[in-house]
Amino acid sequence: MLILITNDDGIYAKGILALYQELQNLGEVIVVAPERERSAVGHAITISDPLRVWQVERGGKFFGYAVNGTPADCVKLAVNALLEVKPDILISGINHGPNTGTNVIYSGTVSAATEGTILGIPSIAVSLDASHAENPDFSYAAKFTHKLAVKVMEEGLPKGTTLNVNIPYLPEDQIKGVAITRQGSLKFTDTFQMRTDPRNRLYYWLTGEKIEVEPNGEEEEIDHLVLRQHKISITPLQYDLTDYKLLEELKKWDFDL
Amino acid sequence: MLILITNDDGIYAKGILALYQELQNLGEVIVVAPERERSAVGHAITISDPLRVWQVERGGKFFGYAVNGTPADCVKLAVNALLEVKPDILISGINHGPNTGTNVIYSGTVSAATEGTILGIPSIAVSLDASHAENPDFSYAAKFTHKLAVKVMEEGLPKGTTLNVNIPYLPEDQIKGVAITRQGSLKFTDTFQMRTDPRNRLYYWLTGEKIEVEPNGEEEEIDHLVLRQHKISITPLQYDLTDYKLLEELKKWDFDL
Repeated sequence: MLILITNDDGIYAKGILALYQELQNLGEVIVVAPERERSAVGHAITISDPLRVWQVERGGKFFGYAVNGTPADCVKLAVNALLEVKPDILISGINHGPNTGTNVIYSGTVSAATEGTILGIPSIAVSLDASHAENPDFSYAAKFTHKLAVKVMEEGLPKGTTLNVNIPYLPEDQIKGVAITRQGSLKFTDTFQMRTDPRNRLYYWLTGEKIEVEPNGEEEEIDHLVLRQHKISITPLQYDLTDYKLLEELKKWDFDL
Repeated sequence: MLILITNDDGIYAKGILALYQELQNLGEVIVVAPERERSAVGHAITISDPLRVWQVERGGKFFGYAVNGTPADCVKLAVNALLEVKPDILISGINHGPNTGTNVIYSGTVSAATEGTILGIPSIAVSLDASHAENPDFSYAAKFTHKLAVKVMEEGLPKGTTLNVNIPYLPEDQIKGVAITRQGSLKFTDTFQMRTDPRNRLYYWLTGEKIEVEPNGEEEEIDHLVLRQHKISITPLQYDLTDYKLLEELKKWDFDL
C-alpha cells in the first residue's frame, strides 16, 4: 500500500512528522510537501514559475521531497512526475489549527486533498484544533488518521469526494466520538491593521476574529460546532460549486441580448 | 451606485480596462486589482506578508489601486480598508481565457467574486473564451457584463451565490443567447516538462491538455459545452463544499475509537 502525504505547514512541520511516523505501520509512505509554510493558499497552483524538488532529511534520515510550490502543486507533481505508481491513498496534514466553515475554501491542507480526489486518489485532509497551542502533540490525531485510512481503504470513497477531518485537541479519553458534519458558516471578520514602515510608507496586515453565523435553532451537525462538543468532525466535501437551487430560478431571467 | 472591479490578470490587463470603460455609464467604478498577473492562485490570501497599495494611472489618468496580493486579498482590502461604503456590486474580470469545469476551483477571477459574495456583495466573475487570441477585443463581453450587472441589481442574488459568466469569443451577431449551466467536469491532464538549468539542476514546468469527461448522454447544460454552441454560459456558484449525498452514507460507518 502506497501512501502519499503532504501538508501546507511545510515539510519541516511537526504535524507531518507525526503522520509519517504513525503511517509507517500501514504501508509505504512518501512525503512530498512544500519547502515552507503555505497556509491559506487555497487551491493555488504554480503555472508561471518552474518547480524544483529536493530531498529532505529529518532526524538524520531521508524523510521526503520538498517542493518550492503550493500543496496542490506537490500533489500534482508527486502523482504525475515523481511517483511511478499512483498512490492508494493521499493524506494531507496534520494541520496545526482547524479547517472548518468558510475557512475550508482558503485552506491549503484541504486543497491538497481535493487535488488528490481530482486525480482519482481517495484523499483525506486532517487538522488538529490546536491553534492556540505552540507545540501541540499530534500523536492521537495521527493514530485516529491511521484508523480512518484503514476504514477508507475498506469502504472506498465515491469519485469526487474528499474527507475533511478536524480533531479536537484533547486527551484521548476526553474525545466523545465521531460526528459526520456539514461545512458551517464560521468565518472571520477581516480587519486590516495599517502601519507605517521606517521609510514612511503604509502597509496592511490582515487580521480578524472568528464570527459564527449559524442559523438559529440549527439542528444539523456542523464542523466547527461538534469540535466544541469534544467530537471529531468528518465532513465529506466535493468540488462541483454549482448552486443547483438557483439554477432553475436563473432560467426565468430575461436576457435581452 | 458603487461598482468594485478586480481581476487576476493584473491591473494593467486589457480586460479590466474594457470593463472599467464600459461601466462608467452605470455608476462610480473603483478598481482594486493585483499589481501583476495572479492566474491560478485560487482562493489564496496573504496572511504572512504585509500588503501594500498604490495608485495606478492608465492613459495618463488615475485608474485604480494596485495591491501586491491575490485577487481575494484585493477584495478584502478594498471592502475592509480602502472604501468607506460597501460596493453595490463586484465584478471580477474580464479574464483572458475561460473559467469552466474543474478550472473554476483554481481560478483567481472566480475566487475574487466568491470573496465578494462572502462579504455580502452581489458578485460576478466574467471570462472571455479567448485563450488563443493574443490581443482579444473585450468590448462585447464588457457590454454584456453591463447588461447583466443591471439585471443583477434589479433581481438580486441570494446570499451565498456568485455568478460565473463565460462569454464565447465571437462577433456579437454570432452569439446565440444565454444558457444557465452547471460546472462541468472539464479538466487538464497534468504533464510536467522536466528540464535542466545551466547549472545542471532539474526543474519542472506544469503543462497539460484539456480533457472533457462528461457522462455519456449528458442532457444538462454544462459551462464549457455551451460555449461551443456559441452561447454565453452563466453558472450560479456557491461555496458550501459539503457533499450532502455522502453525508448519510458516512453516518453508517463504524468508527471504533
